[in-house]
Amino acid sequence: MRTGTITRADCEALDRTDPLASMRKHFTLPADLVYLDGNSLGALPRAARAHVGRMIDDDWGQGLVRSWMTAGWYELPRTLGDRLAPLLGTGPGQVVVGDSTSVNVFKAVTAALRLRPDRDVVVSDHANFPSDLYAVESAASPHHAEVRPLIDPDRLDLDERVAAVVMGHVDYRTGAMRDMAAVTERVHRHGALMIWDVCHSAGAMPLHLASCDVDFAIGCTYKYLNGGPGAPAFLYAAPRFHQTAEPSPQGWFGHADPFAFDTRYTPAPSVSRFLVGTPPLLAYAALEGSLEVWERTDLGTVREKSVAQTSLFIDLVEERCGDRLELVTPRDPSVRGSQVSYRHPAAPALVEALGERGVIADARRPDILRFGFAPLYVTYADVWRAAETLATVAGRHDRA
Amino acid sequence: MRTGTITRADCEALDRTDPLASMRKHFTLPADLVYLDGNSLGALPRAARAHVGRMIDDDWGQGLVRSWMTAGWYELPRTLGDRLAPLLGTGPGQVVVGDSTSVNVFKAVTAALRLRPDRDVVVSDHANFPSDLYAVESAASPHHAEVRPLIDPDRLDLDERVAAVVMGHVDYRTGAMRDMAAVTERVHRHGALMIWDVCHSAGAMPLHLASCDVDFAIGCTYKYLNGGPGAPAFLYAAPRFHQTAEPSPQGWFGHADPFAFDTRYTPAPSVSRFLVGTPPLLAYAALEGSLEVWERTDLGTVREKSVAQTSLFIDLVEERCGDRLELVTPRDPSVRGSQVSYRHPAAPALVEALGERGVIADARRPDILRFGFAPLYVTYADVWRAAETLATVAGRHDRA
Repeated sequence: MRTGTITRADCEALDRTDPLASMRKHFTLPADLVYLDGNSLGALPRAARAHVGRMIDDDWGQGLVRSWMTAGWYELPRTLGDRLAPLLGTGPGQVVVGDSTSVNVFKAVTAALRLRPDRDVVVSDHANFPSDLYAVESAASPHHAEVRPLIDPDRLDLDERVAAVVMGHVDYRTGAMRDMAAVTERVHRHGALMIWDVCHSAGAMPLHLASCDVDFAIGCTYKYLNGGPGAPAFLYAAPRFHQTAEPSPQGWFGHADPFAFDTRYTPAPSVSRFLVGTPPLLAYAALEGSLEVWERTDLGTVREKSVAQTSLFIDLVEERCGDRLELVTPRDPSVRGSQVSYRHPAAPALVEALGERGVIADARRPDILRFGFAPLYVTYADVWRAAETLATVAGRHDRA
Repeated sequence: MRTGTITRADCEALDRTDPLASMRKHFTLPADLVYLDGNSLGALPRAARAHVGRMIDDDWGQGLVRSWMTAGWYELPRTLGDRLAPLLGTGPGQVVVGDSTSVNVFKAVTAALRLRPDRDVVVSDHANFPSDLYAVESAASPHHAEVRPLIDPDRLDLDERVAAVVMGHVDYRTGAMRDMAAVTERVHRHGALMIWDVCHSAGAMPLHLASCDVDFAIGCTYKYLNGGPGAPAFLYAAPRFHQTAEPSPQGWFGHADPFAFDTRYTPAPSVSRFLVGTPPLLAYAALEGSLEVWERTDLGTVREKSVAQTSLFIDLVEERCGDRLELVTPRDPSVRGSQVSYRHPAAPALVEALGERGVIADARRPDILRFGFAPLYVTYADVWRAAETLATVAGRHDRA
């Protein structure tokens, strides 16, 4: 069904029947702003403020060093990992929270190369966020492993030299989504390990890391997961590697008994071996606030709204802009993440003009405009206003 | 001069003339607690709360993704590094804040091994905090470099195979301080690179990384620097390596132009090449609050008070406990950090008993008791009470 007849009133009606409508009140958002950049930095969950304040005042200010044990600090990388697990389709004891996405990609690749010592190639999706590529290269280089760029994800070049494949689940520029189950199965058939970057899908749709038999997955918590600016990343490792993986760097939080202060490193017999140094706890506290919001909803409903909003936006923009904006996101929602991207030679200028009119999107050089839809707080009225505003600024640009 | 005649009133008199007395009001501390574990987790600077609150409410809540540019987020790893620089004896543009100490040790060692490609040994101080040892090993292993343990720091075993030496400036257990200038000079004479871990000296005394010609230094900001639980670490790299060092892991924050989203990694022509992923900004905000306190004082005065307090404590404890507690910290203040440690077979039980009496110290297995003196907020009356309480609990233990 085309939405040629969709009006602003229709969008407002969709908001009234939206099963997620009550979630928006859990976020602080600037008045009158349409925020479509939650795929870059998620909005502020109200509970985050309280959690951080409590950690500062009570745990740090009063508990001081004792809070490592009495306030559960020491366990936070694992307890938050366990709370993220349902969003990722994994069980408890399989996810740890810590470090950045890039450092976690580095850990997964070093672990994979040691798990496949007779292989010396890492296939790295060129459409990955570039930081992943940099991390893959720096992990492969001292192991004398070759990094084979994957230009077309549909043409996976696999042979018995390939130790691991690193791929983004959702392309950060185009929003195209890969088939996690099929790709993982194919990679496994060639005896290689599969490392997924789920930065651009975690929190936007149900993930099924365990049932897809994924080996390692990495993601950040500051996009759709709303954990705050630079919030810690997470790492999933399949249980079959919890006794054998040897990721780098090593640090005391990965030790089987950190407080033994042993000069010899004995990795924890669990996913904790993927931890390294002392974690930045204030950032963890904000994530706790965000997880409280997640625990009030389910990702199936989130995905339904995401598909509805991205489809609506594509239709509204097409109706208004025709082919003045080239859609680079798949029309088929089954292979689309929660973003809609267009190619336009003046993408940065359009994003600036949108911002001046209260619609926040972003541009990726040289010519991509991105609109991210975070269903927990984006309304259908927002989608309407974004499409209308985009039509206005694109029209002005063409006439200028 | 022995302090056999020192009384509680004398200590209170020292507090009244203490040039740092006015600093304590900048911290929140629990009433009636003697906190001598600031070498593990520093106390809460009042300003930290406000900075974190502002970042959450204004920058994240209202500014959202725009704050990367408008609120200076993108520059924080460097601006905070520049503000730390005077505490480290370095200039601007030489320090970055980010990741954990362990990850930064890993970066420095990987960079050093690539800067000395014809050498294949890393000497690693066995008295280092163990996480450093783990990080050194994991950095050396894929380079097929041998890690040579340094058991006695006075007997540095150097030859032309040694690429780098990693040493703690102040021993985390004994509080013994190494001669940074002399060791660095000796290491350089053998053509190796010097990597200092200053976790246990930064914020406790003036450091002179530049004039000591140090190659790399790493430290955390959550001990004497009071940056908060798990606050980000820092890394100093001498300017001579800013164009050439190739640390691992690589990530987009180390790229010369991160927002080019280039598939090829081009390291920044600056100390920024030691950055990796997106930094945990809420933790940075707390550090900003702590730096405001540091900018009100000078480390020379801090060091004077630190020496006075550790000397006083040693004397008071000796007077009360004699040889029931074995002092493992040097008596000579010129080779002592800002902590005093004792060996006692019941160290953990003594620490627990001290805690029950409102004196927080810590134990390091198997038999070390540590007392850390953070001159910004520890009073001479605190020193008195800690010594009195220690005498009480040690006496009870002996009689039990």
